[in-house]
Amino acid sequence: MVRAMHHRDVALVISARYVLPIEPRSDLVLDDHAVVVDTAGRIVELLDRAEAWDKYGAEWPAVGDGGVRSGNGDDVKVEVSSPKCPHIEFVHLPDHALMPGFVNAHTHTGMALMRGMADDEALFAWLQDIWKVEGRFTSQPSFCYDGAYLSAAEMIRNGTTCFADMYWDPDEAVAATTRAGLRALIGLICIGFPSHFAKDEDGYITRGLQTLEKHKHEPLVRFAWSPHAPYTVSDATLKRLSDLSERDNIPYHIHLHETSEECDASEQLNRDSGACHKSDFLGRPVANLERLGILNSRMLAAHMVHLTDDEIQLVAARNVNVVHCPTSNLKLASGFCRTVDLVRAGVNVALGTDSVCSNNSLDIFEEMKMAALLGKTLAKSPSSLPAHIALKMATLNGAIALGMQDLIGSLVPGKMCDMIGVELGTRAGTSPIFNPISTLVYAASHEDVKEVWVGGRRLLRKGKYVDVDMNALLERNRFWTEKINDFRNSQPATTH
Amino acid sequence: MVRAMHHRDVALVISARYVLPIEPRSDLVLDDHAVVVDTAGRIVELLDRAEAWDKYGAEWPAVGDGGVRSGNGDDVKVEVSSPKCPHIEFVHLPDHALMPGFVNAHTHTGMALMRGMADDEALFAWLQDIWKVEGRFTSQPSFCYDGAYLSAAEMIRNGTTCFADMYWDPDEAVAATTRAGLRALIGLICIGFPSHFAKDEDGYITRGLQTLEKHKHEPLVRFAWSPHAPYTVSDATLKRLSDLSERDNIPYHIHLHETSEECDASEQLNRDSGACHKSDFLGRPVANLERLGILNSRMLAAHMVHLTDDEIQLVAARNVNVVHCPTSNLKLASGFCRTVDLVRAGVNVALGTDSVCSNNSLDIFEEMKMAALLGKTLAKSPSSLPAHIALKMATLNGAIALGMQDLIGSLVPGKMCDMIGVELGTRAGTSPIFNPISTLVYAASHEDVKEVWVGGRRLLRKGKYVDVDMNALLERNRFWTEKINDFRNSQPATTH
Repeated sequence: MVRAMHHRDVALVISARYVLPIEPRSDLVLDDHAVVVDTAGRIVELLDRAEAWDKYGAEWPAVGDGGVRSGNGDDVKVEVSSPKCPHIEFVHLPDHALMPGFVNAHTHTGMALMRGMADDEALFAWLQDIWKVEGRFTSQPSFCYDGAYLSAAEMIRNGTTCFADMYWDPDEAVAATTRAGLRALIGLICIGFPSHFAKDEDGYITRGLQTLEKHKHEPLVRFAWSPHAPYTVSDATLKRLSDLSERDNIPYHIHLHETSEECDASEQLNRDSGACHKSDFLGRPVANLERLGILNSRMLAAHMVHLTDDEIQLVAARNVNVVHCPTSNLKLASGFCRTVDLVRAGVNVALGTDSVCSNNSLDIFEEMKMAALLGKTLAKSPSSLPAHIALKMATLNGAIALGMQDLIGSLVPGKMCDMIGVELGTRAGTSPIFNPISTLVYAASHEDVKEVWVGGRRLLRKGKYVDVDMNALLERNRFWTEKINDFRNSQPATTH
Repeated sequence: MVRAMHHRDVALVISARYVLPIEPRSDLVLDDHAVVVDTAGRIVELLDRAEAWDKYGAEWPAVGDGGVRSGNGDDVKVEVSSPKCPHIEFVHLPDHALMPGFVNAHTHTGMALMRGMADDEALFAWLQDIWKVEGRFTSQPSFCYDGAYLSAAEMIRNGTTCFADMYWDPDEAVAATTRAGLRALIGLICIGFPSHFAKDEDGYITRGLQTLEKHKHEPLVRFAWSPHAPYTVSDATLKRLSDLSERDNIPYHIHLHETSEECDASEQLNRDSGACHKSDFLGRPVANLERLGILNSRMLAAHMVHLTDDEIQLVAARNVNVVHCPTSNLKLASGFCRTVDLVRAGVNVALGTDSVCSNNSLDIFEEMKMAALLGKTLAKSPSSLPAHIALKMATLNGAIALGMQDLIGSLVPGKMCDMIGVELGTRAGTSPIFNPISTLVYAASHEDVKEVWVGGRRLLRKGKYVDVDMNALLERNRFWTEKINDFRNSQPATTH
């Protein structure tokens, strides 16, 4: 618990029609409350709005009552200030839900420049197409940087304040993320085939250790060891990375049980399948990781679509974090994750978008609604995955999965001001409101995000970017699209 | 085929970066084309943009090149005019896909004021809650009108230009739809229990015939007989309405095979279930409707979640139109429609949102993406339901289902100018573009709809309503929300 000993330590007081703190309960709605933030970007306290304004001397503006609803969301005229504490910024959001920013717990931000490039292709053709373009372009750092920055811009607009990334080149992802002002868990990629990045698994680890050393003081970025998947990384390296993860107490981010092919091929050690794990162990990948002793609470296991009852019990017992990526799983026809069964078993389930090649958005609103809808149908009950549980998956559960629950995921004193303001009830599609959490999950969309802060820094203001230069960004996109199209047109027609 | 014999018959020339005509092929993209519209609001021709401008004497504005990309979507400065034909309005959409408006083939617009009221409740509790509020309020015509108007405002914003409605009171739905300027197929509701509206099935039919007579000259509105469902309407009335539908050649809109309970209870004639059909026939509802001889191409069968292989062949042979409502089916845990199997059998599959109580949006972008994603996974192939097929479901297939393919659903000379302009590639989430149809289906959202015309009348301009008064609309919503909350709070606690 952090207390503001002096008013001079307070930098920001944000008040809103609804505050959704997620803790102590994800269904809790605080009406007309304020969040007080200190000069270090940390949450100091949550108070009734009137009480907060009284404490810090805030006054409505002299002309106009300022609290009037805006009606169209474009023109909220509420300029509150404090003669007593003129150094404090007051932001009042009269129609908004103020809540923790979304956590996208599985993505590949550097792939953004390939959005929609290989849609509707069968999985193998899709992979071939993407790998060819990656093989040609990812050796150029600016390709990875520009892709990661495009993703960051999209996430800011969509209310995502933190994400778990897995791609090369991590140094470029750090640069783009830091420039954008987002928080991230950047993956130190390791994959068992050579690339411009490294010639073998040991080479990837060496690069990872260098990245870790280079950016260890970066305030917004933490790192995760990221072996790509059991079918691309050897047992020895999977184990070694787990040891490194334990040594430094950092997360371990891996694709796991995404397709039935992966499970079936490993169970039969069918080496003809590209999805067979690289182990000599005759069994499903989760069983092999258990044998290696590397299932634990540091693991972010992305997808986990195909799980037996016993496997669900096992991942629950080992406190593995599951990252549910419903849109990606459907778009690639991978299957339906047993989300409700996982939640009931006590597993921490977070949400991820995967890359824009299999989605094609980095939009946690979509994943949250999709998770709730699919959960209900698979569990055959509309009550089985209520809105507030989906909201918790999208915030606090993501923070836990990323090992960042000390910093983010809920509005609790001592955590960082990584918050968003979502305007509700002012457009036809979100009116009327009976329960703001229900409105948020089932009716709102990313366009309703109007305010975004990370570590107390404002990244979106009244729906507009504070720092992103959209024209410059689009120019880079067009530059790369032309290059990619030229390259693909130069390839034999069978590849796409 | 309609030809503009004189330039003076031309009222409007809309050009765009991409034109998606849907016919002759749903994957066709016409680059930099124009659609010419006559004074009656009908499409005259599709031309290359430069050719159209030359033909009708259009010129770029004297200052600025006007064709420059806007970069943020807010400020498209393209004012084209023709000294030769000053009566023609030119609209140029430099970053947009110009396409037929979406058709929402199953909804209940009057329910909009109950959006989110009973979310996450089990189906029976959900229905009880809604029926109680309906019982209290739908007898007030302004409740139905205000709900329908709120829905219309949402649909205009979301790019839906036509919808199939089923609710009471149809006269109020006509009034709201006409005021909003949308096109609609309004249901003449018939249900086997008494209400303020009618005391029995014959009473509903009498009311329906009155509505039909009263509004028969309304240019934007057509009507469908709308028996609610086999479990609420007798065989005799189902048959009589089918005869009336045949007599006047108007559609027949019904809920069918939405839940497994409906099928199972009817198969066993389990009268204890509220979902058992009212027939004495021992069999599933579709078999009973076949027995009654009322399966035909005038039928819009909403949901059709539970279908055997034989039933799919039967509805294909009878040319029944299926309205797939994926979000609603998931939110109420009804199940997964066999969309790809239906399409492969040759069934015309359209898309619907159902009401906002089981969605909670009237957003065909969501249904289109959901239909494609679920189709892929259920058919176990990412290629099984490609983007352009989902787009066709959302436009032309909807028009066919509503019996309006003579008027709408594709950009073909002679059809009405019911069109939308969707801005692509100017925000982070829709950039870059490799295929605009893929961008539209998998990455775009309703916020990208910037222009809407129905019958040549502009309803949305640069993302803003032309006629809807949002403040007045929200005031009505707050009025009703307060009344509903007061009513619900006065009820015994067990009901919600």
